[in-house]
Amino acid sequence: MSSLPSHSSQSAVTVIGLGPMGRALAGAFLAAGARTTVWNRTPGRAGELAERGAEIADSAAEAAAASPLTVVCVVNYDASDAVLRADDVAAALKGRTLVSLTADTPARARDTAAWAADHGIRYLDGAVMTPAPSIGTPDAVFIHSGPADLYAEHAPLLGLLGGTHAHLGEDPGRAAAYDVALLDIFWTSMTGYAHALAVAKAEGVSAGELAPFAQGIGAILPPLFAEFAKDVDSGTYSGAINPLTSALSSIEHIVHTSERHGIDASVMRAAEALARRTVALGHGGDGFSRIAEVLGRR
Amino acid sequence: MSSLPSHSSQSAVTVIGLGPMGRALAGAFLAAGARTTVWNRTPGRAGELAERGAEIADSAAEAAAASPLTVVCVVNYDASDAVLRADDVAAALKGRTLVSLTADTPARARDTAAWAADHGIRYLDGAVMTPAPSIGTPDAVFIHSGPADLYAEHAPLLGLLGGTHAHLGEDPGRAAAYDVALLDIFWTSMTGYAHALAVAKAEGVSAGELAPFAQGIGAILPPLFAEFAKDVDSGTYSGAINPLTSALSSIEHIVHTSERHGIDASVMRAAEALARRTVALGHGGDGFSRIAEVLGRR
Ligand SMILES: NC(=O)c1ccc[n+]([C@@H]2O[C@H](COP(=O)([O-])OP(=O)(O)OC[C@H]3O[C@@H](n4cnc5c(N)ncnc54)[C@H](OP(=O)(O)O)[C@@H]3O)[C@@H](O)[C@H]2O)c1
Ligand SMILES: NC(=O)c1ccc[n+]([C@@H]2O[C@H](COP(=O)([O-])OP(=O)(O)OC[C@H]3O[C@@H](n4cnc5c(N)ncnc54)[C@H](OP(=O)(O)O)[C@@H]3O)[C@@H](O)[C@H]2O)c1
Repeated sequence: MSSLPSHSSQSAVTVIGLGPMGRALAGAFLAAGARTTVWNRTPGRAGELAERGAEIADSAAEAAAASPLTVVCVVNYDASDAVLRADDVAAALKGRTLVSLTADTPARARDTAAWAADHGIRYLDGAVMTPAPSIGTPDAVFIHSGPADLYAEHAPLLGLLGGTHAHLGEDPGRAAAYDVALLDIFWTSMTGYAHALAVAKAEGVSAGELAPFAQGIGAILPPLFAEFAKDVDSGTYSGAINPLTSALSSIEHIVHTSERHGIDASVMRAAEALARRTVALGHGGDGFSRIAEVLGRR
Repeated sequence: MSSLPSHSSQSAVTVIGLGPMGRALAGAFLAAGARTTVWNRTPGRAGELAERGAEIADSAAEAAAASPLTVVCVVNYDASDAVLRADDVAAALKGRTLVSLTADTPARARDTAAWAADHGIRYLDGAVMTPAPSIGTPDAVFIHSGPADLYAEHAPLLGLLGGTHAHLGEDPGRAAAYDVALLDIFWTSMTGYAHALAVAKAEGVSAGELAPFAQGIGAILPPLFAEFAKDVDSGTYSGAINPLTSALSSIEHIVHTSERHGIDASVMRAAEALARRTVALGHGGDGFSRIAEVLGRR
């Protein structure tokens, strides 16, 4: 790494991982004036970050040593373990703070917290809930978990990333638990949309024609999510507005139309099986939210 | 049916089917001052509609004979065929207009249009894209298809239902094609949400705790839907913001966390298989929208 100019009064941060999200994080720190050091397994991924003032470290250990706070954002914990659990990196992180914004399971987050504790590394585990282009804007959403005092100490620096930040609790797996659940909604919805576009196309409806209506469907989801959550927390699954039998009928039409066009309907078939199982358990007059309860019975 | 007061200058409409949606439609017509006749297979479902001035017909044929326009809204076309294709009902509808707001497949809609033509019934096929409580409010969304002049003739009466109405084309199956595609998005998303709530609960996160963040996920979908549609229509599936390999990694975390808690992950497993197949075809660096193209290859 080239010798750093002195920025004693300035906040300093290291970002490990320069995929689309790591680059966005580093870019937001730079834009906010933080002294920013970056490292990525594959060199040459810093793009315009160097011109914008980022220091490019020659190794992960050098990167970790450069700042009191290191943010790691790589594809998953297999990748972050491959980087962080090297002896020199763990040694460099000792006594410093590591914030993982890498997505993975709650179990992996807890395991990493335990590893960090064993190595004298102060650890926060978080997740980014919005796409890379949102970073540094008011639209960004971050969730965090781990020791409240550690979070409070670093909240000003993390706040440079923009948007809203929520500390969800001390259990280091808690942000990942939210993340997994929220990505479940996200990727299931996106899969449904991909499938819908394929079915629409087979019916002669272009993506551009469907999109405004699809956006309308997207817009009705948030209020329904809130009502549905009330059902689940109260254990009352009213089908007064839309009974499960009616939903099942719609789902059958989707499967039928898709398969008639030779389009794989496996996702909707799995949803159909869940709905059918729930009806078979005697809940056909309940609302769709009953499916959450039946899934949770295990 | 009791003798009707004369309302010669007033619009008159019949609603067949008094599930939650049929009741909402009839309620909106009544609220707008239309002379409204209703019928439902199972008697006694009119609820407060009678007090609000609805005429309760004794038979479907009587209901159809009472108004120049009949709206049918039952669970599916098996149900609407059971009602409408009775000889007396078809005879009563002859020369009048039938608007189906029952959801089913495009093929069933086209078949019903052909049946209507054979029986001298003027026919429009539509769908309601918003929940029953939206009817009669600006939030309601209706889509229609069939002869443009017939639609134009009845648009003022249909407009009494509130919200926005779009005529999508002359092919009577076109509204159903949109409907099936849009319900695909809707029910896939709702299934994802039900699953997410079950996983969250197993992780000690209540539905009420997750809901505000879930609403945030819902809010990011519409702009992504628009971008994704551009990818599909242009045949360019950029993974610059989020490559499919990264999505697949997230999907694996969801499956793993779910199954670790003994929660059925069949829907997400089907999504995972699609993503994996798309990566195996060499598209791992593309965006998730590539899945729509791969599904469409058949
Ligand atoms: N992109 C978004 O919009 C978005 C939104 C929310 C959350 N996230 C999350 O943010 C994280 C990063 O995502 P991303 O979009 O930046 O891209 P990504 O494709 O998920 O991750 C790419 C990064 O992971 C690194 N990596 C992969 N395998 C590695 C290994 N074995 N050892 C070391 N590094 C490895 C890559 O290094 P190389 O360059 O050397 O391959 C690169 O830095 C993910 O957990 C993702 O779920 C992303
Ligand atoms: N509810 C909503 O929020 C909503 C939103 C958008 C679209 N839709 C669509 O609107 C339509 C109606 O839905 P809904 O919510 O009102 O309830 P639904 O449960 O889908 O349908 C109930 C209606 O179907 C009738 N029916 C069922 N089988 C029948 C048969 N074999 N013969 C005659 N009638 C039969 C019922 O009559 P009985 O009372 O005699 O059983 C009742 O009138 C559906 O296509 C639905 O997909 C509903």
